[in-house]
Amino acid sequence: MQDTPKTRLHVDSPLAEGQAIGLDHERAHYLRHVLRLERGDAVAVFNGTDGEWLAVIDGFGKGWCSLTVQARRRAQQDGPDLWLLFAPIKRGRIDTVAEKASELGASRIWPVFTRHTDPHRVNMDRLRANAVEAAEQCERLSVPDMPEPVQLHKALADWPAERVLFLCAESGSARPVAEAVRDFAGRPAAFLVGPEGGFAKSELDDLSKLPFVVPVGLGPRVLRADTAVFAALACWQALVGDWTASGGDARPPFRAAEDARGQPI
Amino acid sequence: MQDTPKTRLHVDSPLAEGQAIGLDHERAHYLRHVLRLERGDAVAVFNGTDGEWLAVIDGFGKGWCSLTVQARRRAQQDGPDLWLLFAPIKRGRIDTVAEKASELGASRIWPVFTRHTDPHRVNMDRLRANAVEAAEQCERLSVPDMPEPVQLHKALADWPAERVLFLCAESGSARPVAEAVRDFAGRPAAFLVGPEGGFAKSELDDLSKLPFVVPVGLGPRVLRADTAVFAALACWQALVGDWTASGGDARPPFRAAEDARGQPI
Repeated sequence: MQDTPKTRLHVDSPLAEGQAIGLDHERAHYLRHVLRLERGDAVAVFNGTDGEWLAVIDGFGKGWCSLTVQARRRAQQDGPDLWLLFAPIKRGRIDTVAEKASELGASRIWPVFTRHTDPHRVNMDRLRANAVEAAEQCERLSVPDMPEPVQLHKALADWPAERVLFLCAESGSARPVAEAVRDFAGRPAAFLVGPEGGFAKSELDDLSKLPFVVPVGLGPRVLRADTAVFAALACWQALVGDWTASGGDARPPFRAAEDARGQPI
Repeated sequence: MQDTPKTRLHVDSPLAEGQAIGLDHERAHYLRHVLRLERGDAVAVFNGTDGEWLAVIDGFGKGWCSLTVQARRRAQQDGPDLWLLFAPIKRGRIDTVAEKASELGASRIWPVFTRHTDPHRVNMDRLRANAVEAAEQCERLSVPDMPEPVQLHKALADWPAERVLFLCAESGSARPVAEAVRDFAGRPAAFLVGPEGGFAKSELDDLSKLPFVVPVGLGPRVLRADTAVFAALACWQALVGDWTASGGDARPPFRAAEDARGQPI
């Protein structure tokens, strides 16, 4: 096996020895003119189901690049089953949320509109591009599932009963995040982070009636929405996710590779 | 006591009943022309030593604003003793590091230059402004101490022996952050986060010889430097800092959702 290639790419193609892969104009340009890679140079590729493979550049053309898949470098392994639901925030900050949630191992990143959510639409192409780039850089073997944004009540209406939804609360009555997260170790989990303006009282009332909702507190300071996202995901990973000593073994149930590619809802 | 003012300001003046405070041109402009506050309106002020006070606007002039301090709203309380040492990263990302470290309750934010650190200087005025703005918004009663940047070896040369320095390591041999942090509960702590290019081998060798250094791992994915900062500080606060249940005694009051809409200064 060659040295670790510096470049990792997420691709949609199946990966197997000898498989040919075509890259689109944007990526071909990036490899050729930004990274200055040449025919014969190696990159790492992954598609979320077949592990990570070494692929070698066969050639470039006007607007394309072809690769041939060679040896497998890592077997597919699915990360923890951890969703993030968050109220869209303004551009710049929302890009960082997608990037960091991907790095912090969220399996699903799902924008949900709440009463006080300010942006009324989300550029999902842009958000997905940020998450994919982060996945490539941080050595994930899959990219987060990123369904189209929905109203919060719609996301809750079809909620899978076994998945605990940690509500990042602004009020002091919530349980400290470390305690709550440990109590639900082994359960599929999700965090819900509200907009900068907070949830409406009626939303909090509705949430409090749902059996899978557990309000959690993130300390005495009033965190911005993006900070709450980073903090919540990191705490979960450190306490019951794949940052623990047991790492892979005692991790909460893993998704099958197929599910990791998730269907948009 | 009046309702919680939406605006919080960090000031340098002593705070006591009847004390007059003058604001500089920039802040006077902000209060008058951006927030459209008027004579008689109230703001909250804190200076890091005297708690938080209500102050009322006496008047505006060309380039100034005067306030009179009225009632004390919160007694001074010191946050956890948690330092952040980090290798400067590029503009934009370094601003976010200052903002988030302040929100996440770092008591000291200290840029340190390492072998592979790319920016060779840091705009400390800008960094401090970001940290102060975050402190105002997140209801801290103090702003982080932000010493001038130094070479890493200088910061380590005078290191206080009782303070554990958690080294955010890129290699898998480090102990999981949650375990390590719990082992040193009750000790003054610091995190050291290296540059995007990682530490040099000689730096890691030197660090490994220091009795107060404890390498910690932040999971299997390769985190960007800024992500490592957010994750490390959040984990510490959640596990042994003021996000724990016992931290509750020392917690300041929470803002209601309505107040959380307050604008940063």
